[in-house]
Amino acid sequence: MTVLTESSASSESPTGTESSVVFDELAALLPASQLMATDEGASYYRDQSDGTASGLPLAIVFPANTEDVAAIVAIAAAHHVPVVPQGARTGLAGGANAVAGCLVLNTTRMNKIIGVDRDDQTATVQAGVRTIALARAASAVGLFYPPDPGSWRASTIGGNVATNAGGMLSVKYGVTGNFVRQLTVVLADGSVVRTGQRTIKGVAAYDLTALLVGSEGTLGIVTEITVGLLPAPAAAFGVSATFATVAEALAAASVIVASSRRPSVLEYLDGACITAINAYDPASALPAGTAALLLIQSDEAGRAADDVRTYAETLRAGGATAVVIASDAVALDELMNARRLLHPALQAVRGASLNEDITVPRSQLPTLLSSLEQISAELAIPIAVGGHLGDGNLHPIVGFDPSSEVDVAAAQEAYARIIRLAISLGGSATGEHGIGVLKQDHLDDELGPVLRALQERVKHAFDPDGIMNPGKKL
Amino acid sequence: MTVLTESSASSESPTGTESSVVFDELAALLPASQLMATDEGASYYRDQSDGTASGLPLAIVFPANTEDVAAIVAIAAAHHVPVVPQGARTGLAGGANAVAGCLVLNTTRMNKIIGVDRDDQTATVQAGVRTIALARAASAVGLFYPPDPGSWRASTIGGNVATNAGGMLSVKYGVTGNFVRQLTVVLADGSVVRTGQRTIKGVAAYDLTALLVGSEGTLGIVTEITVGLLPAPAAAFGVSATFATVAEALAAASVIVASSRRPSVLEYLDGACITAINAYDPASALPAGTAALLLIQSDEAGRAADDVRTYAETLRAGGATAVVIASDAVALDELMNARRLLHPALQAVRGASLNEDITVPRSQLPTLLSSLEQISAELAIPIAVGGHLGDGNLHPIVGFDPSSEVDVAAAQEAYARIIRLAISLGGSATGEHGIGVLKQDHLDDELGPVLRALQERVKHAFDPDGIMNPGKKL
Repeated sequence: MTVLTESSASSESPTGTESSVVFDELAALLPASQLMATDEGASYYRDQSDGTASGLPLAIVFPANTEDVAAIVAIAAAHHVPVVPQGARTGLAGGANAVAGCLVLNTTRMNKIIGVDRDDQTATVQAGVRTIALARAASAVGLFYPPDPGSWRASTIGGNVATNAGGMLSVKYGVTGNFVRQLTVVLADGSVVRTGQRTIKGVAAYDLTALLVGSEGTLGIVTEITVGLLPAPAAAFGVSATFATVAEALAAASVIVASSRRPSVLEYLDGACITAINAYDPASALPAGTAALLLIQSDEAGRAADDVRTYAETLRAGGATAVVIASDAVALDELMNARRLLHPALQAVRGASLNEDITVPRSQLPTLLSSLEQISAELAIPIAVGGHLGDGNLHPIVGFDPSSEVDVAAAQEAYARIIRLAISLGGSATGEHGIGVLKQDHLDDELGPVLRALQERVKHAFDPDGIMNPGKKL
Repeated sequence: MTVLTESSASSESPTGTESSVVFDELAALLPASQLMATDEGASYYRDQSDGTASGLPLAIVFPANTEDVAAIVAIAAAHHVPVVPQGARTGLAGGANAVAGCLVLNTTRMNKIIGVDRDDQTATVQAGVRTIALARAASAVGLFYPPDPGSWRASTIGGNVATNAGGMLSVKYGVTGNFVRQLTVVLADGSVVRTGQRTIKGVAAYDLTALLVGSEGTLGIVTEITVGLLPAPAAAFGVSATFATVAEALAAASVIVASSRRPSVLEYLDGACITAINAYDPASALPAGTAALLLIQSDEAGRAADDVRTYAETLRAGGATAVVIASDAVALDELMNARRLLHPALQAVRGASLNEDITVPRSQLPTLLSSLEQISAELAIPIAVGGHLGDGNLHPIVGFDPSSEVDVAAAQEAYARIIRLAISLGGSATGEHGIGVLKQDHLDDELGPVLRALQERVKHAFDPDGIMNPGKKL
């Protein structure tokens, strides 16, 4: 990982003359409102990750539809100019950061909900539609789009597809990819394909839809997405429980995971997260002075209240110091909203943070959490841990002062050790945020050379000239 | 589609001398019990599909583990000999049929359950483990492997992965691919990779696991599979209902699909299926003299009985002529077992059958079913329809007498028309059986040239010499 805020254009980027030819071609294609010169568009250079490198783009473009994207990519392909797609730039791994001499292709003007089909329980949207807008459009006709990444009020569906975003409801409903049926994709030569099928099942061809999900824009640019929806669930009931020790919280959660009543939410926050969230937004009012907090919900029709009573008994039997049942939507939203502040709250503690997104087999959670305490102590750097306990996908957050060289070095070391720890426990560097540029150094540890080479052949099959978001993912 | 039982070796297959060199190398590698000459192994030439072509293999091999498979594929690669993997040969599209001069690689001796991890809710098995054996191993420790293709007593997990098999429980739980976490795969050069991750979530690399699922052995040979499991569900309750018209059955099913109580089974049989199943196995005793039968179940803890009562009310309100609730496991099993006889029962009616596996958006089911009646009448060929109504994945079965040229021609015409119909309704030729050789002619209609070319580039990235199950899938 390289902690840089901006790198200079590399020697491979187009010369000034070539750049101006490309810019002129774009200006001939797009109205002025859809094309921005580099000096106007600095806010589009990068996502929300701290400490990731970005380069100076050639221009920022704002296509309105698939045809615009195809024409832009055709120009880029003709001049061998890299294209970096981005949505709302809520990413946490630098996947949407500009690379030197690229076109930044921002999808936020592609924000049209093309249709919601109540009978077939599907929705088709442009890639720049916000996650919450899709969820609301589904809800308006009695349907449900479950994936709810932390940034869902701002994030786009295209960005969610690019990282295969999860969220708090993933423990029951799965991640973005579990809902994606069809993708309209602009390939590296500007041609357009639609992958997948509208139907629930389908095995006519290789599942390129699944391959594109999570590919961070390195195989093609997703412009339209058809998702499957579910009937709206029942109103949720929830329970929160505090524990004097992390071990008791983990043990109680294990009992719930092993039961046949599947919670719709099973989240974890440690004491440091609670302190940071309460400091960041005092309205959060999470219970202070505790080692660990579990948030658990059920949204099962005709059973949610009974599920939550059962969970509450399990939590009490597991030694919870306080157990609070909430059947009130407002109270539940407050808890969920407080939980969603995890990243900004921890970023605020020391001014910057490195956000982990590790996964481990659930049986390894006790070892993981005790090892994280050790790393924090050894490097004298704060590590707060929260996240999706039910999925084994946690977000240890390493806070650091970006102006302190000592802090930066310790944070980098902690960050790398945590990923190596997760991999050594049978896990992965990333469950839902992606590799981006932040985790590049760890990919080889995880894949090994033969699988890495196969991945590169697949990339080459899609993008032989390497212009699609180069330097990301692989 | 070509109706052939065997084709002669093509001009591209190895010469006799080369073949004997390959056979000698295999004989040096494998014990005699794991290698079979062509003349001994005719039963391994093909799967259960009627009317699909197969070729004469060079030999049949029975590897015991990944190392055997790697060594066999290395020999095949060195001599440019095609390799056709197969499990229990329960396929219905010819995907496991031998091609001329190939090695048939039968995985049924790779039948070891490597481990079931109760805490992490996973199981790792060799590819030749039978589906039912995995389900039972999971059940023995209180866990659940849901995918239950019709042939699950015989079919192998490797075959299920190759076709992304579904089953009756897919309407609630999803298909095989939804449970696959990791695959050990022998690539076309004999190298071995492990794709995916043990954890629930993971986006570190392109999702080659999802790409391999459903690829019918054309990208590599899957030798070991790690699946995610669920906690065991509650005992199921079920309800069956008969209808005087297909339209009423479809309308009642739509109401159930739109509700927040998701059934674990939602199956459909028309009158012709019922007649054929009762004739094939009189013990089935399905209710005769009716236009359509729905089978619906719930396995939700603490709610199954209530779910089924709710479904029964919906069915009665929808005009069902008879509604029978079953809470008894034996009675439920009888209904499910009768439903599982669909393919053999219809095959028996005229001696052979072409088994469709079409999917359509659920809103198109009424149009689909009335159009099928029309095709049957126009071509004077019986078409019985049953299958996974809740998924929009039906199995129209075209019965024919293989000794009658008129019947064969009419069956072929009906088969092709049905696929074109499904595609024209926004559906697909195959939901869970695969393309194999049977549906090759229809793939272009579904994909179009740009997507087809992209698929071929992906195939080439895995298998540049085209030795992995050539002529299948694409």
